[in-house]
Amino acid sequence: MSAATDVGKFQTLSTELERGVLTVTLDRPDRMNAFTVDMANELVLLFTEVNVRDEVRAVVVTGAGRAFCAGMELASEGNVFGLDESQRPMLSDMGDLDDPQILRGVRDTGGRVTLAIFECRKPVIAAINGPAVGIGATMTLAMDIRLASEEARIGFVFGKLGIVPEAASTWFLPRIVGMARALEWVYSAEILSAEEARDGGLVSRVVAATSLLEEAQDLARRISQNRSPVAVALTRQMMYRNSALPHPREAHRIDSLAMFYTSAGDGKDGVRAFLEKREPRFSSSAHTGMPPFYPWWDDE
Amino acid sequence: MSAATDVGKFQTLSTELERGVLTVTLDRPDRMNAFTVDMANELVLLFTEVNVRDEVRAVVVTGAGRAFCAGMELASEGNVFGLDESQRPMLSDMGDLDDPQILRGVRDTGGRVTLAIFECRKPVIAAINGPAVGIGATMTLAMDIRLASEEARIGFVFGKLGIVPEAASTWFLPRIVGMARALEWVYSAEILSAEEARDGGLVSRVVAATSLLEEAQDLARRISQNRSPVAVALTRQMMYRNSALPHPREAHRIDSLAMFYTSAGDGKDGVRAFLEKREPRFSSSAHTGMPPFYPWWDDE
Amino acid sequence: MSAATDVGKFQTLSTELERGVLTVTLDRPDRMNAFTVDMANELVLLFTEVNVRDEVRAVVVTGAGRAFCAGMELASEGNVFGLDESQRPMLSDMGDLDDPQILRGVRDTGGRVTLAIFECRKPVIAAINGPAVGIGATMTLAMDIRLASEEARIGFVFGKLGIVPEAASTWFLPRIVGMARALEWVYSAEILSAEEARDGGLVSRVVAATSLLEEAQDLARRISQNRSPVAVALTRQMMYRNSALPHPREAHRIDSLAMFYTSAGDGKDGVRAFLEKREPRFSSSAHTGMPPFYPWWDDE
Repeated sequence: MSAATDVGKFQTLSTELERGVLTVTLDRPDRMNAFTVDMANELVLLFTEVNVRDEVRAVVVTGAGRAFCAGMELASEGNVFGLDESQRPMLSDMGDLDDPQILRGVRDTGGRVTLAIFECRKPVIAAINGPAVGIGATMTLAMDIRLASEEARIGFVFGKLGIVPEAASTWFLPRIVGMARALEWVYSAEILSAEEARDGGLVSRVVAATSLLEEAQDLARRISQNRSPVAVALTRQMMYRNSALPHPREAHRIDSLAMFYTSAGDGKDGVRAFLEKREPRFSSSAHTGMPPFYPWWDDE
Repeated sequence: MSAATDVGKFQTLSTELERGVLTVTLDRPDRMNAFTVDMANELVLLFTEVNVRDEVRAVVVTGAGRAFCAGMELASEGNVFGLDESQRPMLSDMGDLDDPQILRGVRDTGGRVTLAIFECRKPVIAAINGPAVGIGATMTLAMDIRLASEEARIGFVFGKLGIVPEAASTWFLPRIVGMARALEWVYSAEILSAEEARDGGLVSRVVAATSLLEEAQDLARRISQNRSPVAVALTRQMMYRNSALPHPREAHRIDSLAMFYTSAGDGKDGVRAFLEKREPRFSSSAHTGMPPFYPWWDDE
Repeated sequence: MSAATDVGKFQTLSTELERGVLTVTLDRPDRMNAFTVDMANELVLLFTEVNVRDEVRAVVVTGAGRAFCAGMELASEGNVFGLDESQRPMLSDMGDLDDPQILRGVRDTGGRVTLAIFECRKPVIAAINGPAVGIGATMTLAMDIRLASEEARIGFVFGKLGIVPEAASTWFLPRIVGMARALEWVYSAEILSAEEARDGGLVSRVVAATSLLEEAQDLARRISQNRSPVAVALTRQMMYRNSALPHPREAHRIDSLAMFYTSAGDGKDGVRAFLEKREPRFSSSAHTGMPPFYPWWDDE
């Protein structure tokens, strides 16, 4: 990756940008890519950076070696586990999530990562190449599509540790697999095979281990090349935002503005290209070209 | 259809009422029933009219000729595509959706149709007889049940045109097929076969092309004959409204009132008929007999 | 069950506590366990009592004899059906659900039960051993996992009686089986076989009638033994609450507090036990040990 397109130097991740697709590898193979606070910080940084890099059209996340991510590095954290009861904040104390004391001492580390993925303006595909456990499983829920190799094993194992599921997984998982399956998987804390995960709708496809990464990268290109960066970014955000609204009228309001905006933007050539039976030429930027009504969550 | 039961004269639709089921045919077969502003206006009119016609117990929507609906008629619209950037409204400008300038110039045409279907007090079944693309696909999402013939092809193709999905489809689609499949289908913009649509939960059944319409009409009768028009209308609205509430307590409030109301209405004979092992005689009207707490969305 | 662990004396239910699992049997076998106001009151009492009994780690609900629950006892109710139109309250009159007149005269009886199950801090498993119709079907929706015997038959039959679905079923059912299937099942009012219910995602597994109860009890133990009572209770509530929020940011806030709290509680030994490869020793109480921010619904 040339300096111009480098998305940053990382200790726990390696990255490679090729033809629009940034492949991010969780890269602590001697620890089965176990999740650390450093890895969390680097992932947040990376997904924030991705938003301002027009050359990155889509992201694939995978693991180095035989695991995807074996979960929280339990030996090393220490700033979450083991706190004194007197230090427990009340709900009302959590007003400012970015207060340094809250950020370091209380905010769920995995959730900081999934929120960063949630805000990402590019499609994100998980290529689950092996065990994905705990935060290794929940971090993929905020990604758009999950492909699994036959070697993948997925476990929402929090129950066995006496703790709760995290990383906003209780927000994402029922949306993906329905409430009944979400409850059963989290209660049971059992390790799912790739096939079970696919049958339950968590994983889109199971592929051979040797072709997983290539298939994920191909899919990433297929959904981002010859696509409008602004329309893709809006689509992702509309899907999450609109589906959570109580009434479709509000979704219609957002649709109208987004359709109006994209029609006058990349849609102009999109329609022309369609009528002329040629490839479209899309030139918008998801960095500088998002419409004035975006982000919209706080406008409610 | 006699004058008394005529739901209106249309240019882009044909309608036929038979034994309580209104069959609506998108009727521009030389253009694969492509969607125009005229068709949108006529569909809004029709679904509004259906609510005040007691003789219409259920609606089936299908397409004339070999297509269901090939999407927006791109050659003819013009009031959406091609606007100047300076004309783009802000989110805050969308306060009054019925302001004539907003209505004509900005409001998503497909969304006006799906909102009208959403407000419909009768069950609506899509009989997808062939290609259903773009708005041809998204308009069916607001319908209650989708049957597809083997010839059906369904595509959320917006991505290829550089525009966003519309017609409140990002509100409806994740509710029907889950978030992961919704994201993948919309990102990929690929055309789904009838079987793929069924396997994903979008389509309830795939039937032979020759029997599709009859099966849809039979189903429509089965779910609306010997049924209380008020209870059916409330059920549909409760399903959408209640499931979108944050806490079941609020659903319980609505349930209580709706159960109280229908129990003192058609439910009286319904229970009596059940105990006497005979067919019930339901006499309520979804036009004049909806309870005082309906519509309830604005009461929140 | 010894006096010390007795959860109460009931007329319509029988209960048995064995190794942490409370089996509750709907016990009016001569009436196919039809649901009465007495049964509703007893179920509410039971699920409330379960929350303060640390010795109850999970609950299994089944039916005596050949049915699970044949629905509302239509011969005996009378306080709901047959009310005069002038007695119908407006939506605004429902402000205080616990006003005695509202409670007895208007509040949906089934909904009082599902709300009590919803508030339960222990996992609840339905062992559907035979026909489960009307409230017999809808009461299971608030339970976490449904197992069915081959003899199970499930029907959302309200439409045939001219009344609406109740017990907050329009809140629960789309979360479990998706909106399209929920609408079709409720519209059709048909009786589903155990296999149809499983294929639609309503039922987790279909097992032989002779082993149903044992399998349900085994599952109940598997998800509650060697688990933190507080973490289990929080997990259940987080799944429902967080997934209904509009933005994952709010889920993250709850996650952070709940993870913080459980990490300093049972999670301490949970992590230690994991590192030491031994069984954890969890000592928290879902009665006295819930965190200060729970319940949280009204804090929004």
